[in-house]
Amino acid sequence: MTLIDLLGLAAGVCTTAAFVPQVLMVWRTRSARDISLGMYGLFVTGVALWLVYGVLAGAMPVMVANGVTLLLASAVLLMKLRFDRAARLLEAEMQQLTARVADTFETDRAP
Amino acid sequence: MTLIDLLGLAAGVCTTAAFVPQVLMVWRTRSARDISLGMYGLFVTGVALWLVYGVLAGAMPVMVANGVTLLLASAVLLMKLRFDRAARLLEAEMQQLTARVADTFETDRAP
Repeated sequence: MTLIDLLGLAAGVCTTAAFVPQVLMVWRTRSARDISLGMYGLFVTGVALWLVYGVLAGAMPVMVANGVTLLLASAVLLMKLRFDRAARLLEAEMQQLTARVADTFETDRAP
Repeated sequence: MTLIDLLGLAAGVCTTAAFVPQVLMVWRTRSARDISLGMYGLFVTGVALWLVYGVLAGAMPVMVANGVTLLLASAVLLMKLRFDRAARLLEAEMQQLTARVADTFETDRAP
């Protein structure tokens, strides 16, 4: 294995492992509001294309690195969709509750 | 250009362009709380290593894609450091203010 191969290996490990702390953070905080849906939509598409490229080119390191990255980035994307939806539902419920409280208050004060 | 080359090109455009919506989102909202510092620290390191790999291997597409990605991901990382720090300072200021208000209130009610 040459120095250039080793460099590529280290680079691939870093860019793939990078998604582990992001997956753990979104899972722990149950929040992904600051994470761009457009970014993860494009990124997951790109990594899937890299995986197909690796398969067609018979390049094992490209397949492995992008296979793992695809799993991790997809996990962030799915959690974002789920937690954003939960946050929207909670917000709508809070608004309804506030409106009901305001309504009750208005009725009580009616002359 | 073969089909495999085209696939690699499309993949590279997606994974690089993916960071554009994230940069714009963090810049607009001035918030990056849900973005993992560990992820961007590792990712920027990995992309920098890919860039060096591209230079040493004389692979122009690897150099270009990772050069652009390095700029975009570094922008997210720097904005995260800056906006997180601003949020921490604001929070500390709010806590001091709250403590001062509570202090004043206690003094007023002292017998």
